[in-house]
Amino acid sequence: MNQSIIKYILGKVLAIVGLLMAVPIVTGIIYHEQETLAYVAVGVVSFLLGHFVSRKKPKNTVFYLKEGCVVTALSWILISIVGAIPFMLTGEIPNFIDAMFETSSGFTTTGASILRDVEALSHASLIWRSFTHWIGGMGVLVFLLAVIPMSGGSNINLMRAESPGPSVGKLVPKIKGSASILYKIYLGITIAQFIILLLAKMPVFDAICITFGSAGTGGFGVRNDSCGSYTALQQWIIAIFCVMFGVNFNFYYFILAKDIKKSLKMEEVRTYFCIIAASVILIFFNIRDSFSTVESALRASFFQVGSIITTTGYSTVDFNLWPTFSKAILVLLMFVGACAGSTGGGFKVSRIIIAFKAFLKEANSYIHPKSVKKIKMDGECVEHDVIRSINVYTITYLTIFVISVLLVAIEGKDLVTTFTAVAATYNNIGPGLAQVGPAANYFGMSYFSKIVLIFDMIAGRLELFPMLILFHPEVLKETFLKKRCSQKNA
Amino acid sequence: MNQSIIKYILGKVLAIVGLLMAVPIVTGIIYHEQETLAYVAVGVVSFLLGHFVSRKKPKNTVFYLKEGCVVTALSWILISIVGAIPFMLTGEIPNFIDAMFETSSGFTTTGASILRDVEALSHASLIWRSFTHWIGGMGVLVFLLAVIPMSGGSNINLMRAESPGPSVGKLVPKIKGSASILYKIYLGITIAQFIILLLAKMPVFDAICITFGSAGTGGFGVRNDSCGSYTALQQWIIAIFCVMFGVNFNFYYFILAKDIKKSLKMEEVRTYFCIIAASVILIFFNIRDSFSTVESALRASFFQVGSIITTTGYSTVDFNLWPTFSKAILVLLMFVGACAGSTGGGFKVSRIIIAFKAFLKEANSYIHPKSVKKIKMDGECVEHDVIRSINVYTITYLTIFVISVLLVAIEGKDLVTTFTAVAATYNNIGPGLAQVGPAANYFGMSYFSKIVLIFDMIAGRLELFPMLILFHPEVLKETFLKKRCSQKNA
Repeated sequence: MNQSIIKYILGKVLAIVGLLMAVPIVTGIIYHEQETLAYVAVGVVSFLLGHFVSRKKPKNTVFYLKEGCVVTALSWILISIVGAIPFMLTGEIPNFIDAMFETSSGFTTTGASILRDVEALSHASLIWRSFTHWIGGMGVLVFLLAVIPMSGGSNINLMRAESPGPSVGKLVPKIKGSASILYKIYLGITIAQFIILLLAKMPVFDAICITFGSAGTGGFGVRNDSCGSYTALQQWIIAIFCVMFGVNFNFYYFILAKDIKKSLKMEEVRTYFCIIAASVILIFFNIRDSFSTVESALRASFFQVGSIITTTGYSTVDFNLWPTFSKAILVLLMFVGACAGSTGGGFKVSRIIIAFKAFLKEANSYIHPKSVKKIKMDGECVEHDVIRSINVYTITYLTIFVISVLLVAIEGKDLVTTFTAVAATYNNIGPGLAQVGPAANYFGMSYFSKIVLIFDMIAGRLELFPMLILFHPEVLKETFLKKRCSQKNA
Repeated sequence: MNQSIIKYILGKVLAIVGLLMAVPIVTGIIYHEQETLAYVAVGVVSFLLGHFVSRKKPKNTVFYLKEGCVVTALSWILISIVGAIPFMLTGEIPNFIDAMFETSSGFTTTGASILRDVEALSHASLIWRSFTHWIGGMGVLVFLLAVIPMSGGSNINLMRAESPGPSVGKLVPKIKGSASILYKIYLGITIAQFIILLLAKMPVFDAICITFGSAGTGGFGVRNDSCGSYTALQQWIIAIFCVMFGVNFNFYYFILAKDIKKSLKMEEVRTYFCIIAASVILIFFNIRDSFSTVESALRASFFQVGSIITTTGYSTVDFNLWPTFSKAILVLLMFVGACAGSTGGGFKVSRIIIAFKAFLKEANSYIHPKSVKKIKMDGECVEHDVIRSINVYTITYLTIFVISVLLVAIEGKDLVTTFTAVAATYNNIGPGLAQVGPAANYFGMSYFSKIVLIFDMIAGRLELFPMLILFHPEVLKETFLKKRCSQKNA
């Protein structure tokens, strides 16, 4: 284990988090809030400490998949802890686990909250919460590009890095290129949403926070009713942008490259829109009677579907009160998730498509035993390794899910609460049903459950394996204990 | 599609069902019940009609996997329909869908009932219900041997027949050999349970029915409280035998062959017992306080765990009232299921072991990228095709599950009822939670939901693919419509 490079990267991350606190600091100054001091203190200390730790670039920059996983998992844990300290210092969230829950929920773009009265927060803290979403949404894109290099432009193989040991030096130029395009797209759509929301007469502060929350597919809002009190037009805008941020960013890249044909042919994006359309229609007919107008029923249906499938988690109504059929669809969408290569979480549409094609192929082989059909995606054959990795991902996904449900069940909340609390954090959505539904929140969960859910949020956000690798006994030992041995060897 | 062989086999099946009605007929005569007449009528007509249809053995006995799937699925549907007619004729279950639900629940060894007052049934109908379990439990063993030949003595590859086209003639001697050993084991343990229950002073009629229900891992009882009113000793006996019928029958085969060492080394059986032990202990400590003695808490825990993991579905207490942690474990066990090669249903322990090993292998490859470890089971390498088929099975399993939940959700029962109704029928268990919990039953479900659940019971029992193949549009057409074409060709 190359500990010096891990230390170096973590130092950099810490310094960056310190820098990012400029946003709540500026906001606090504008609103003359004394909470600003907490952000100044944490920001300055983080920045200096981070710089001190990473003052020397290590000589050995060789960096294997194991180090990549460890450093990614540790980065996410680190920023969740550091980002939580201001909440504790301002006294807005005095308990450490609660504060860390809120921050990791922010950075992982989950949007699950333990705050019972969001409106009581300072503007500095409100914008920090929302800003963590935006950083997290962007951070995952970087992570996907950096630690898990994509093979041959395909976005499907998110999980399994095929390159066994690139050095950091070699990797960076390539990543920087791809990342800067994605950043520009991300920034562009973010600005567009902000401006359009302003045009729709949303207050500036709300527009900033809601835009951050939609862009990162996070879901933290600034009002206690999430998005319920915004105008119909504003709700439509938010929902449409949520859906846009759940699209595979390659789609926009192709459009920018004027390859409209290729973008329209993307199976994942087409399937994603089909799932949304089908869900909206089914829910619309199911809930139609409880709304006064067709528009309001359609809007409620579209908003909730767009918010859940992209794993954003905003809500305009309390869908916990909807009929079981609609709730069942929403729970299903929680697992489907957004497109790969977007800021959204969940299982990802592309994985579902390939898994479903594998199933069709198998069923077909019963009827035509001699046919040899390959599974295709966007017209290209899907390699065997990709299918295998999706299968292993499915099993890993289910294993973590089941263990989490059992652990959260210990505190004895009802089954629906337990099940959807795990589903909504693991898939980085935010609100679940029953006691963690849109009208309630995670305040009432035990601290033990909150720790489990923090793990789930980070594991879900990092596509499972980094957290599992980090907590592998052998790796834990190498990371934190073997320093003396390696120093002796050196 | 070889339609003549399908017709021939279905005729045979019909005649056999007619013969099997002798059991309720004899019972009815002993108890002087007028319901006997219904069984006489259906039995005689089925027997004669079956013989008439299969009077000529078709010349072409070549039989491919497709035909195997179709004939298996159709057989299960046929016996569920024919077995339902007596219930309608006696007026005990006047509605056809209800009667078919009850019978398919019997033959698939599910044990889900729509009867609100079991004790009001005639003895003839009670024993017919329980007897269907025993036939179903045995029938699946035959099916697993006949239509899905096991490759190389392994029981893992339940799903995918590797032999593309054996003729019936060639296949039979081998099956007959294996089947007769399994039948003897099945019969032997059945008789043992019956005698031991009699020694424990259970009434003869109860002992017969309960033994049928345990042997087939079915779950139909003869009392309204399932097994709640039996003595502690009787409950222990029932639970132990349930667990025994959930063991891979190869275990007993090895014991009979005096190869105790090999039987003790079976990973699946060891894992199965470990899961049971862990679940019993966890639930015991979770429910301990609500019982007056340690024995009664331990018995309740062991009985429910043994009944659910083997997918039997008997109960001694209303576990719907247990704490969430215990309920979550039971729901998990519903999916785990029993060993492959037993009479139990569910996902099967062996599949879970292999899936879990595939996951470990993947996680390990992150830490030791160069290691090339093969997945082993019982000391032998698991072939790649087996792993692939398990992966496809997982996806198919989840797909059917999700669609079923959505369809059942339409009628608007609460989420726990909807979810566990599907889980409990699909995995052939019987009782779920909430409105389909042990103290309630499926009476209140809509007819549409019941049809979905009938499909799930049969699909789950036949390891999914036969029902999917049958309902494939192409196969449906070939089976029921293309007759004229093939006759023209002939």
